[in-house]
Amino acid sequence: MALALSLGSRDLGHVWPRPAVGCVLVRDGRILGRGWTRGQDGPHGEAMALAQAGEAARGATAYVTLEPCAHFGRTPPCSAALVRAGVARVVSALEDPDPRVAGRGHAILREAGIAVEAGLMAAEARETHEGFLRRIQQGRPMLTLKLATSFDGRIATASGESQWITGPAARRIVHLQRATHDAVLIGAGTARDDDPMLTVRGLGIARQPVRVVLSRRLDLPDQGLLAQSADKVPLWLVHGADVPARRRAAWTQKGAVLVEAATGADGQIDPASAMRALAAGGLTRIYCEGGGTLAATLLQADLVDRLIGFTAGLALGAEGRPALGAMGLSRLAEAPRFELVRSQAAGPDLLHLWRRRS
Amino acid sequence: MALALSLGSRDLGHVWPRPAVGCVLVRDGRILGRGWTRGQDGPHGEAMALAQAGEAARGATAYVTLEPCAHFGRTPPCSAALVRAGVARVVSALEDPDPRVAGRGHAILREAGIAVEAGLMAAEARETHEGFLRRIQQGRPMLTLKLATSFDGRIATASGESQWITGPAARRIVHLQRATHDAVLIGAGTARDDDPMLTVRGLGIARQPVRVVLSRRLDLPDQGLLAQSADKVPLWLVHGADVPARRRAAWTQKGAVLVEAATGADGQIDPASAMRALAAGGLTRIYCEGGGTLAATLLQADLVDRLIGFTAGLALGAEGRPALGAMGLSRLAEAPRFELVRSQAAGPDLLHLWRRRS
Repeated sequence: MALALSLGSRDLGHVWPRPAVGCVLVRDGRILGRGWTRGQDGPHGEAMALAQAGEAARGATAYVTLEPCAHFGRTPPCSAALVRAGVARVVSALEDPDPRVAGRGHAILREAGIAVEAGLMAAEARETHEGFLRRIQQGRPMLTLKLATSFDGRIATASGESQWITGPAARRIVHLQRATHDAVLIGAGTARDDDPMLTVRGLGIARQPVRVVLSRRLDLPDQGLLAQSADKVPLWLVHGADVPARRRAAWTQKGAVLVEAATGADGQIDPASAMRALAAGGLTRIYCEGGGTLAATLLQADLVDRLIGFTAGLALGAEGRPALGAMGLSRLAEAPRFELVRSQAAGPDLLHLWRRRS
Repeated sequence: MALALSLGSRDLGHVWPRPAVGCVLVRDGRILGRGWTRGQDGPHGEAMALAQAGEAARGATAYVTLEPCAHFGRTPPCSAALVRAGVARVVSALEDPDPRVAGRGHAILREAGIAVEAGLMAAEARETHEGFLRRIQQGRPMLTLKLATSFDGRIATASGESQWITGPAARRIVHLQRATHDAVLIGAGTARDDDPMLTVRGLGIARQPVRVVLSRRLDLPDQGLLAQSADKVPLWLVHGADVPARRRAAWTQKGAVLVEAATGADGQIDPASAMRALAAGGLTRIYCEGGGTLAATLLQADLVDRLIGFTAGLALGAEGRPALGAMGLSRLAEAPRFELVRSQAAGPDLLHLWRRRS
């Protein structure tokens, strides 16, 4: 199952809205087939492993990181394929909460006389499938928030100088992390200030994550790098209802996908509504890179599942630009809390990973 | 030598102004004596090891973490004692830059026909003796700055609520760290706001570090915990020249030691002058616990040798009180930089250690 989980993780960020499933077929201690769900249109993990094993699959055990599907989607149902192949036993890590599956995959297998065990390495599988599970169960994507700051939590000097607080090793890890998410998210202020491209570079990756910008009025610079590349790399713009039709049309023409979200009492985009709209669009794993206002809004709304800190060994002082905007906390007990997963050096910087405290 | 260094570290924080020296006597692969400089009046490491070995020291090799002293201080010179004991060989980690020694310890040994090798594990010894070396060579103590903050570099909510951002494990480590420093340092603002005791608690330690407060006008609350305990636990107050004699007398009467330092063009205590004055008083290792204004001042003046961060997994937002005050940096390149030594979990918090980039 550990191998199946590792295989399944290979295409994380590339399979949405599908789960990234891994599958290993074993008989008499020999591995007969390995598979993982490939891209958005490729075979599921089970199908790939069965194709590798061929006739040898008869009587084998299949380790699958999620309950095999029971419905026709982009591919025929995997539970039926496992039955047809004559597999003797299926060990799965989790039941699939997708209403089209939800136990029916396991039931189809059992009805065919296949021994089914569920729950092996369930905690690890929940980790891998977190984005898929949150979308199905809560109607929102998993959200990772990255903050790269000075030792004292600053992202730029008072004059806005920010290149480079963290080093090349940290930036390389950021590109790796972008690549394992379905989408990269920033606020309109960051889009305007930094004019970023938000693509994965230097990793030889063909499929880019969706670039998402929250911009209530859709008033992003129309000559920026995002605008210029909207017809080549997916660009989704989350906006409020009160945007003139002409402006919407201009962005659609550039190739951007428009996603409408509700606005809150403060006139800003409601972050929960934005996340629901992005999940409705199919996204399961989102990597937010700021800026400070958006990061604070997401934290305040308790939408952040994973927190990734890059801390550089330099001090910028109180005039520096803070990593998080105002959060309106009146009491310490209201502050969103996270638990430490691990920390490690990233070149000269410190990388630390935290998970929502459940 | 590794054992000698570990022995030497035992009384770090308790031997100032002396160096914390460790010594191991070995012959034919057997350890005959172990010693470390004990407290402010006890024997040096060499003397303690020689006393343990007795007659067996004849013909032995002595591993010493610093060149044996050549002068009468609180104890007679160790180089002479090693000669008298008939030691055959002395391996030391570092030459002692103290002008009263500075090679003369080694010379005395060589003149007596003892084989002398210097420089074994010199880097590690420089680490242990950093406070002693900085005081002798630069006329200032080694300075460790501790910052315990939220994930976004805040030490309290807007309303000043700060108990507890970090957990009991972090606080216990802070007490351990206080105990291995000669003194604990805070600014007057923190003394007023928090009314701290600044002692080492819960570790069964008899000798407390000196408590140092920087207060230009000596206008600390005279009923606070520091004032009340000044006759029991050492309290040094660093102040400017323009303090009325009556106020000085009041604090002296309470039992505080007054340390005068120069003030800068801004009317505040000049941090370099304060550090020189504290070194002149004998302090070699200082542990600064803030507040933000003092921490920023010390960083700006490039007086911080070690940086210790405790990061809690919670976010407080931009209204929170920042860990560092204003630093007046105009360019990123001017920011003081540190290199990561290591990081680890401290209960639910993250502990990270940094060292001045040399």
